[in-house]
Amino acid sequence: MSAPPSAEAIPVLDHGFVRLDGSLADDLSVVNAARVSFARRKEAMDDSDAGLVRFLMRERHGTPFEHNAFRFHVRCPIFVAREWFRHRIGSYNEFSMRYAEAKDDFYVPAPEDVRTQVGKPGAYTFERVPDELAAETRAALEQSYRSAFATYQGLVDKGIAREIARAVLPVGIYTEFFWTVNARALMNFLSLRNAETAQREIRMFAAAVEELFSTQMPITHAAFLQNGRSGP
Amino acid sequence: MSAPPSAEAIPVLDHGFVRLDGSLADDLSVVNAARVSFARRKEAMDDSDAGLVRFLMRERHGTPFEHNAFRFHVRCPIFVAREWFRHRIGSYNEFSMRYAEAKDDFYVPAPEDVRTQVGKPGAYTFERVPDELAAETRAALEQSYRSAFATYQGLVDKGIAREIARAVLPVGIYTEFFWTVNARALMNFLSLRNAETAQREIRMFAAAVEELFSTQMPITHAAFLQNGRSGP
Amino acid sequence: MSAPPSAEAIPVLDHGFVRLDGSLADDLSVVNAARVSFARRKEAMDDSDAGLVRFLMRERHGTPFEHNAFRFHVRCPIFVAREWFRHRIGSYNEFSMRYAEAKDDFYVPAPEDVRTQVGKPGAYTFERVPDELAAETRAALEQSYRSAFATYQGLVDKGIAREIARAVLPVGIYTEFFWTVNARALMNFLSLRNAETAQREIRMFAAAVEELFSTQMPITHAAFLQNGRSGP
Amino acid sequence: MSAPPSAEAIPVLDHGFVRLDGSLADDLSVVNAARVSFARRKEAMDDSDAGLVRFLMRERHGTPFEHNAFRFHVRCPIFVAREWFRHRIGSYNEFSMRYAEAKDDFYVPAPEDVRTQVGKPGAYTFERVPDELAAETRAALEQSYRSAFATYQGLVDKGIAREIARAVLPVGIYTEFFWTVNARALMNFLSLRNAETAQREIRMFAAAVEELFSTQMPITHAAFLQNGRSGP
Repeated sequence: MSAPPSAEAIPVLDHGFVRLDGSLADDLSVVNAARVSFARRKEAMDDSDAGLVRFLMRERHGTPFEHNAFRFHVRCPIFVAREWFRHRIGSYNEFSMRYAEAKDDFYVPAPEDVRTQVGKPGAYTFERVPDELAAETRAALEQSYRSAFATYQGLVDKGIAREIARAVLPVGIYTEFFWTVNARALMNFLSLRNAETAQREIRMFAAAVEELFSTQMPITHAAFLQNGRSGP
Repeated sequence: MSAPPSAEAIPVLDHGFVRLDGSLADDLSVVNAARVSFARRKEAMDDSDAGLVRFLMRERHGTPFEHNAFRFHVRCPIFVAREWFRHRIGSYNEFSMRYAEAKDDFYVPAPEDVRTQVGKPGAYTFERVPDELAAETRAALEQSYRSAFATYQGLVDKGIAREIARAVLPVGIYTEFFWTVNARALMNFLSLRNAETAQREIRMFAAAVEELFSTQMPITHAAFLQNGRSGP
Repeated sequence: MSAPPSAEAIPVLDHGFVRLDGSLADDLSVVNAARVSFARRKEAMDDSDAGLVRFLMRERHGTPFEHNAFRFHVRCPIFVAREWFRHRIGSYNEFSMRYAEAKDDFYVPAPEDVRTQVGKPGAYTFERVPDELAAETRAALEQSYRSAFATYQGLVDKGIAREIARAVLPVGIYTEFFWTVNARALMNFLSLRNAETAQREIRMFAAAVEELFSTQMPITHAAFLQNGRSGP
Repeated sequence: MSAPPSAEAIPVLDHGFVRLDGSLADDLSVVNAARVSFARRKEAMDDSDAGLVRFLMRERHGTPFEHNAFRFHVRCPIFVAREWFRHRIGSYNEFSMRYAEAKDDFYVPAPEDVRTQVGKPGAYTFERVPDELAAETRAALEQSYRSAFATYQGLVDKGIAREIARAVLPVGIYTEFFWTVNARALMNFLSLRNAETAQREIRMFAAAVEELFSTQMPITHAAFLQNGRSGP
């Protein structure tokens, strides 16, 4: 795990990124998949097709949005990856700490991202903490990370299997994975993770995913927005 | 529904085809998805990578084969489509006879494909019938199709809803659909459908699918063959 | 294929039924699955739990509704089964006409169900046709079914493989299958198939499914209704 | 999170368990799902049915094994849960450290489970370490866990949101979840996780799962063993 592997990667948080590794994606495939119902097919989009895309989204005709694929390369903290992997419609391959050696990249929130939780269960909001407490928190996280990594390193150096030594590594450590997903499942992910109710950290990754998605399928993305950020 | 929509479509049976409408597929993505476990990535395949692909296939590490997509456009009889759609890992959009008008294309087996079933349950084999019986069978099918279609047409002409009139249409009528699938699910399909035990008709479609697959991911396809036509 | 296999089967259309073959289903499992987030568990529901179920439904927290299973035994026309099987989250085993012999049960709509289609594409409605046309339609369907079945029977009697002879059998013939599904996928099915926009025939099957579902998980079903027949 | 919630829970590792919370599972449903192909159904198993179950397993007819459900309640370390959740065919609800407070239960391997990794990549084996190194390792893990938890507790006490403070918690901490799965996906899980190549810790959980599975579907489980621990 090192620097983002190419210029197009979008940096996220202190050591993370989202990169589009490849895609088969265009708005035309949505239209053609829907039109196969009537045995019609087009070689190019025209203006009326945007209306069809909006109609399909609104009426929750989901399958026409599945005939495409996005392959993302992501680097994020484990606690973000754990939320991400709950989305089962999609494919994952992740860095393994059973065999490979962990690297000491850990998530420390920017000062303005250190927050407190206010309100009641089911209706929490989050607020920035005073600068001093933010600094103190960052120092405490860094110290704890450093100490855990030293323990890990020490055990590995003594010959303890990595799959055991890793037990002390915190969920704030960075991991890396490939994620391949279609636009329908992607919009479901965005509606839940690039949202007020999502944890701020995964939300920032989801925003990067959304940026790449909107570039590839602008008409579908516009329909998603018009539908209140609700997928088909 | 008309002639295959482009030169690359592979004709199958009397009125069917398989066409690759688009793909995100290469052998390199298999290797890179597997290597993310070790945080390594390559820009091109080399000779050792073919060995890795074979290893993954043999050891049933399936996920690296999921980071790709094939979008097929298929035209086949309904009884073939029904077997096809039992494969749930993949996306489908099909021609709808609820609203669109059926077209009179029906499957009549070539004389050498008219067969009889011999043996016992669980161990049937199929043999070609004598020419005369083949001719008789073809005539009987054609006559039955023509009659059913005339009934359908007559009811539609009298104003009966298509969704009701279609009830008389036989499962030998042609339908059309888009199918998007990844290589792992595709190999599962091929192992079951381009196989001795599959019905001859779907097998011919599966063979066309396999031809297109092998062109896109030749190293993965070779590993599939070496693994006894068993996917990961 | 014969009479419904037990008293509890709900008859649908002229020869169909829906029967609950078994289930693991209660509202308590929804509550306990949601409460595992807070490491709390209950042995019985209380009044406040209905509110939690409604909250989960409205906020689209879907996974707590997946920890249950319904195993249905269904008999319906093939054209209904084809729409049903498009729902991929669930398990199916169906009667096979490749090897088993077809039985001559076909769907003939009741006189009041023979309908015409009015309106424009995307906004069709259906209206009952005059009695005379209904009677004529029913006779035409019956005649076409009888003729197709005679062709099928004749070919089988001459030794033609069933998997070929069946090509003439119409999509109005009855088939039979087992369907196992969880409440989340079931509600998605109900929202699309026990709905105005669904074809009347599958809607009647979906209504029978809903009746059995509401008996097993009454609080979840009530929340589904209150949520505008939209699942989580 | 506390003691296993009932007598039937199987304890695993130092603070974990597997408990069968409910099931819809019997061998007869496999037979009946397969026999629907021929429209036959039984009220009870007989001797010949075990042969059918073995045949289905061997020939990889998987769908008859899907008409059942097991709902497990599991408590295990996060690094075990992460491997578990890679199995996408199934339903999960997990304890959330975003809002609920973490409890200080951490995995410390028994002395005989502290191991070293020998051999080459792709062919590692694991061996027990000398008693002294085992004791030293256990002490290092405990010390690191205690320190991380103190940091977590300190941050929470100062008002830092739990969703941030948890970043220091190690993957050796215990979590809890519900898992609902059918026998086909369960056998896939067992073939990969109750296996030589799996990490010892998840293997012990998988063994507990297998014990509960074999009690519910003994004939299916016997066929799984006879098939070389390979599912359908």
